[in-house]
Amino acid sequence: MVSIDYLLNLIREDAPFGDVTSETIIPDIGCNARISAEQPAVIAGLSEASALFRYFEVGVDELIPDGSLVRRGDTLMTLHGPAKKILLVERTALNIIGRMSGIATTTREFAELVHRVNSSCRVAATRKTCPGFRELDKKAVSLGGGDTHRSNLSDGILIKDNHLAIVSLDEAIALAQSRSRCYKIEVEVETREDAVRAAQSGSDIIMFDNMTPRQVQDSLDALTQKGLRDNVIVEISGGIDVSTIVEYAALDVDVISIGALTHSVKNIPVHLEIMPLKK
Amino acid sequence: MVSIDYLLNLIREDAPFGDVTSETIIPDIGCNARISAEQPAVIAGLSEASALFRYFEVGVDELIPDGSLVRRGDTLMTLHGPAKKILLVERTALNIIGRMSGIATTTREFAELVHRVNSSCRVAATRKTCPGFRELDKKAVSLGGGDTHRSNLSDGILIKDNHLAIVSLDEAIALAQSRSRCYKIEVEVETREDAVRAAQSGSDIIMFDNMTPRQVQDSLDALTQKGLRDNVIVEISGGIDVSTIVEYAALDVDVISIGALTHSVKNIPVHLEIMPLKK
Amino acid sequence: MVSIDYLLNLIREDAPFGDVTSETIIPDIGCNARISAEQPAVIAGLSEASALFRYFEVGVDELIPDGSLVRRGDTLMTLHGPAKKILLVERTALNIIGRMSGIATTTREFAELVHRVNSSCRVAATRKTCPGFRELDKKAVSLGGGDTHRSNLSDGILIKDNHLAIVSLDEAIALAQSRSRCYKIEVEVETREDAVRAAQSGSDIIMFDNMTPRQVQDSLDALTQKGLRDNVIVEISGGIDVSTIVEYAALDVDVISIGALTHSVKNIPVHLEIMPLKK
Amino acid sequence: MVSIDYLLNLIREDAPFGDVTSETIIPDIGCNARISAEQPAVIAGLSEASALFRYFEVGVDELIPDGSLVRRGDTLMTLHGPAKKILLVERTALNIIGRMSGIATTTREFAELVHRVNSSCRVAATRKTCPGFRELDKKAVSLGGGDTHRSNLSDGILIKDNHLAIVSLDEAIALAQSRSRCYKIEVEVETREDAVRAAQSGSDIIMFDNMTPRQVQDSLDALTQKGLRDNVIVEISGGIDVSTIVEYAALDVDVISIGALTHSVKNIPVHLEIMPLKK
Amino acid sequence: MVSIDYLLNLIREDAPFGDVTSETIIPDIGCNARISAEQPAVIAGLSEASALFRYFEVGVDELIPDGSLVRRGDTLMTLHGPAKKILLVERTALNIIGRMSGIATTTREFAELVHRVNSSCRVAATRKTCPGFRELDKKAVSLGGGDTHRSNLSDGILIKDNHLAIVSLDEAIALAQSRSRCYKIEVEVETREDAVRAAQSGSDIIMFDNMTPRQVQDSLDALTQKGLRDNVIVEISGGIDVSTIVEYAALDVDVISIGALTHSVKNIPVHLEIMPLKK
Amino acid sequence: MVSIDYLLNLIREDAPFGDVTSETIIPDIGCNARISAEQPAVIAGLSEASALFRYFEVGVDELIPDGSLVRRGDTLMTLHGPAKKILLVERTALNIIGRMSGIATTTREFAELVHRVNSSCRVAATRKTCPGFRELDKKAVSLGGGDTHRSNLSDGILIKDNHLAIVSLDEAIALAQSRSRCYKIEVEVETREDAVRAAQSGSDIIMFDNMTPRQVQDSLDALTQKGLRDNVIVEISGGIDVSTIVEYAALDVDVISIGALTHSVKNIPVHLEIMPLKK
Repeated sequence: MVSIDYLLNLIREDAPFGDVTSETIIPDIGCNARISAEQPAVIAGLSEASALFRYFEVGVDELIPDGSLVRRGDTLMTLHGPAKKILLVERTALNIIGRMSGIATTTREFAELVHRVNSSCRVAATRKTCPGFRELDKKAVSLGGGDTHRSNLSDGILIKDNHLAIVSLDEAIALAQSRSRCYKIEVEVETREDAVRAAQSGSDIIMFDNMTPRQVQDSLDALTQKGLRDNVIVEISGGIDVSTIVEYAALDVDVISIGALTHSVKNIPVHLEIMPLKK
Repeated sequence: MVSIDYLLNLIREDAPFGDVTSETIIPDIGCNARISAEQPAVIAGLSEASALFRYFEVGVDELIPDGSLVRRGDTLMTLHGPAKKILLVERTALNIIGRMSGIATTTREFAELVHRVNSSCRVAATRKTCPGFRELDKKAVSLGGGDTHRSNLSDGILIKDNHLAIVSLDEAIALAQSRSRCYKIEVEVETREDAVRAAQSGSDIIMFDNMTPRQVQDSLDALTQKGLRDNVIVEISGGIDVSTIVEYAALDVDVISIGALTHSVKNIPVHLEIMPLKK
Repeated sequence: MVSIDYLLNLIREDAPFGDVTSETIIPDIGCNARISAEQPAVIAGLSEASALFRYFEVGVDELIPDGSLVRRGDTLMTLHGPAKKILLVERTALNIIGRMSGIATTTREFAELVHRVNSSCRVAATRKTCPGFRELDKKAVSLGGGDTHRSNLSDGILIKDNHLAIVSLDEAIALAQSRSRCYKIEVEVETREDAVRAAQSGSDIIMFDNMTPRQVQDSLDALTQKGLRDNVIVEISGGIDVSTIVEYAALDVDVISIGALTHSVKNIPVHLEIMPLKK
Repeated sequence: MVSIDYLLNLIREDAPFGDVTSETIIPDIGCNARISAEQPAVIAGLSEASALFRYFEVGVDELIPDGSLVRRGDTLMTLHGPAKKILLVERTALNIIGRMSGIATTTREFAELVHRVNSSCRVAATRKTCPGFRELDKKAVSLGGGDTHRSNLSDGILIKDNHLAIVSLDEAIALAQSRSRCYKIEVEVETREDAVRAAQSGSDIIMFDNMTPRQVQDSLDALTQKGLRDNVIVEISGGIDVSTIVEYAALDVDVISIGALTHSVKNIPVHLEIMPLKK
Repeated sequence: MVSIDYLLNLIREDAPFGDVTSETIIPDIGCNARISAEQPAVIAGLSEASALFRYFEVGVDELIPDGSLVRRGDTLMTLHGPAKKILLVERTALNIIGRMSGIATTTREFAELVHRVNSSCRVAATRKTCPGFRELDKKAVSLGGGDTHRSNLSDGILIKDNHLAIVSLDEAIALAQSRSRCYKIEVEVETREDAVRAAQSGSDIIMFDNMTPRQVQDSLDALTQKGLRDNVIVEISGGIDVSTIVEYAALDVDVISIGALTHSVKNIPVHLEIMPLKK
Repeated sequence: MVSIDYLLNLIREDAPFGDVTSETIIPDIGCNARISAEQPAVIAGLSEASALFRYFEVGVDELIPDGSLVRRGDTLMTLHGPAKKILLVERTALNIIGRMSGIATTTREFAELVHRVNSSCRVAATRKTCPGFRELDKKAVSLGGGDTHRSNLSDGILIKDNHLAIVSLDEAIALAQSRSRCYKIEVEVETREDAVRAAQSGSDIIMFDNMTPRQVQDSLDALTQKGLRDNVIVEISGGIDVSTIVEYAALDVDVISIGALTHSVKNIPVHLEIMPLKK
């Protein structure tokens, strides 16, 4: 739930000294407008766009909820209010909808690939988001059917290779447990041996980082043999894309996390069309 | 020049209640680290990353300046300081460098395509940036050799189709001139007739929006015939990509603006490796 | 368009721990009030004052729009709402109206002097505004009929003597053109020779700084002889006041910029009178 | 003591997207510079300007302290550091020094007029300051030898005519005393009778608002006759200027408050000159 | 009067990335709720809680005003609106009401003890408040019938032992008087001699710090003998608690200030109960 | 890790218009000072106090680390720097240390009681903190040896009675699992039957709310009989104090959470003593 203050700062970014053009050439009149999609997509960002338009006293009719699948040309919302205000908010609103819809659409595509071969496996995001836009990037993943994973460094313990360059795995897990019993503890491993040790030490999630499908299978086998498989959630991460995800998903894994969901976004093109009131 | 406050807000986004993991498991020791690129790129974001590390009292050796072309595996900067601080800043710094380098690299690719056929034509960005990251998106375009175009609604007059749905072209230009003589006036047109009228009315830049190369050529011819071509800058915009840009660039145009430079970014993968001090 | 947050910060400045007096001695009752001018003026700041009163749930009747010319004693707006809220906002609202009206009134006076002798010449402001109040100072200039000139260092290129102490004029203009084709390029000159060189190098505006009317005339003649006059906007700046402006305006110049419009403001006295409701 | 954050916001106002000119045309070199006054003045704002330059890693030599009297042409401070940073801060720093010095200089002029006829009477400011610049306006008054009076609505009780339109004088004072014994209670009066009642009710300061010198004298006589004069501080306010202040000051009053000190400021012209390093 | 922005920051503290639980498991339905006290108390914080609920579009019926005395189980307010919003605000609202009511209740207890033996003596707070919550701590004291004393370092002059380690008492008072005649001047003393000197030098309030009842009586006698008692307000401070306050209050003192009112608060337990709408 | 901005806001709360007293009466000299404890305590808040003093260029010698146990009179840190700056920061620093040390000391007392009878059971805090001071309240709990529990609504799923008034337990847990596999899921129960159901549904933590020791024992027995005890963490909560905690701790429970750790804090008295430099 991003705050209206957060959203207004995005307007301020696009108009630190106002909208020079509209203030100068547009009269104080009302108009109608509509926002539509230029290609099929899972749409996200509508509630943020609405909040902005409403803040500036533009009436909004939300024709579909966030998370909807739309076709090319579908209208997402209609607007009616002061022309200057609609023009002020236009670009910011479209940028929000465009990026979030891009993320939601890609997340859904990956999730559908995975679910064909493994109905219980989740597609998850990482913290590789656009700086300053984290919460909305994560929300878009959720609207696309993905798992949001950690929001940030404050809401979970994840012990990675750079930590293990400094402390040992056992020590790290023991310290993590002493902090609080309220966080899950996740450990990144690169070998089958470390996977077993992490599970034995009491970690809740084991992330297999940059391992081949065969290495993943070997590690899963080792966990199963030791009776550890049911105690842990298994996450796969590292360079997974459309061409490789199905092979990983076919294994007995719980989560596949994909940085590209948020670090390499292709915006869905959306546009706003002003329709002047008849006189 | 983004402020340190702006950059610290990005850290706060990634650690609103601190870095639970490192605070809990990492001792108060110093270490070395290096950041390197995982593929060839035009690198940007190093000065922002440096500012963040330095704010947290991490020493930084910048091995290359922003805008440099690097190969796969090249080291971008080395760090030395408290391990907890390096780990706190890591992800935010990498997200900044990754996105900005992605933009700079793509900008350079487009610019090189254009310059092969038209050495005076500029590749320009639009306002289709990631909300909250505008200034750094624009800076990355500049580091890649692009033209930043308008930063926002406050620093130039650009009369678009949505404005012209409300006021006439002539009225719009007259009002714009009355506001201030300090702004350039740009007008978006879709036909050859409007191009001529815009130039006659005194606009400084004419943006040909979503026109085919043939339509652009016709409009340029009309401007030339009326003796108006030298009075205006001609910009092409709308759905231009790698496959079409050369055909447009070969025409006598001044600027080609491309939303995808910033709305559909593919991050350059960069990573940070901790190297503990020998004991 | 300043934001409500900006305006609320001004209230916070006047009441960081509340309005001790009214909170203590004023009961929770409603009242009427009116704001009036104590001398003839071009009024500005009404929309900002209204926004503040409305934020605190005070009803506002705006009797005149910003930019209106009023006589001594004219009522500017009437208010009706909680007495404590009206008293909380009173001083901040009056300070805004007083300063902005002072600027608008002076701008109009200068503009009228100029237009008697040169109907196409604009009176413009500078960046010599009260720190923290820039946007409203500029808006007041606009309401008084002036040209707002650059809002800030981000929205135009202006090459001044301090820049030219470091780089040459030709180099400066070449670099400026390489940044973006979207900004006008203005150059400050002090001699007729530099005026010609600036025009030849491609600058859009030439500012004649601290030159006598005779020097200005000589420079204009030089530009005309070289056929450069029509390519550039000519701006006069530096120590111009009521006694000298007409002489400058009578020359063929386009813009006269005057720091005193915003750096030496005489507030228009306005006051607010509470009228308790009859019982 | 304004914070560095406050000062940086003033830079942000002047460069929301950076200093386009200097970033584009100025190389990464160091230079010297000096700031000097263009007319005699009591100088203020140097410590704020220094803090800003230092924040941007520009070395500062403060040649005189705030509050100093200078002659035309005197150097106020010298600077040495990155040219781009000096140019970024220049206008904001000069605007601060110019306004604060204008206020300090005028305050001193009024104070000297008063002290010739009444050595114990103070010249005081009001809350009629430039919105957003209150603390520095008040500091400038203090540097000019004036009394800062209430900073804002939170730091003293002042019962004015608009309050007395709602509650009676006696009730107001009784309520004020019940709030806290830590605030002085000031009452604005317009008649001799109210002056006596205010003193009898226990107010600490009586402000005679818009009264003629004769009315003031009559009121003072009445207070003296009732043995109340020594219990209260007497303040004169309302439309006092250079032509009338001496007549008021010659009476037995303690404070003369003057809105014009801060609501109608004439900036002291100061400028900054870049001196490139010899090569 | 704390601002809504201030209150929203408290929500942000409790939900920097939203309310994960309610967003995930609670449908978009409305409900009713009520807030009640779990023990007898003087209630404070209701207006702040209401403002927060209303901001999130929850309807509020305030059944009692702030400052009311309630019994165990009494309902303080009822709510009706979106369940997710009520759950988002719940903890923050209860924390505010709980703490403020704790302070108001304790203040009232002390005030009642004092008033049994000295009806004109006030119980006052200090600046020993919870950092970041000062204004509401002070407001709670006021609602409990206490004197808020200085809000902060900006709204009164209080010369303490640490100041007097650097400047002499006479010098300190003389300097304080030169700053402004609008502040009361308070001096902290530890001996009868200093009490007399402070009163003679013109201080308005004398704070007897950490003195026994007998030492206080001696000092009051000395002030009376010199005819100074009526010129000053006498405040007692330092380690006063329930067991000692009556003995001090029985002396002829004006104010007793107690840090524990705000530095050692015991929250009043209050809870919120959701009542789903009947279907 | 609270930011320096956060800490500076606390100074701003105590000095919105500066420190009137010290600015007026204290010369620009340096001094030494020391901060000491007035009673035995576990000390916390030193690193925050140091950061503030250092920001204002006061030198700090930290004699002990946060978390240390001190005796009455022990010096916590010594300071050396400008007297005005030390006095500006004094009260804010002492308020931080006083509150945090109060929390750390009480946490340790509870933890010691618990560990005498159950060495693996943790004492945990709740979200009943002082609004605006959450992160430091939690840090103080950690320094006292406690478990910080959820920081806020964003970092864990906790299904409470108010949620279960709207959705069923099974549905709630199913939805929570669908959100992300990265959060632990905690459920509050009030009966033995619900405890069993929660464990069977897959919750990670079961909080027994306001149950008697006998009810807790019964519920634990039921979990054990069903073979569910080892799958869940058991937390006890609700009205636990010094007189009852040992009885609960003696049962086989994992966490005992206590709101009073942070909602009913008794500050540790600490003071700062200025020691002027010898001349």
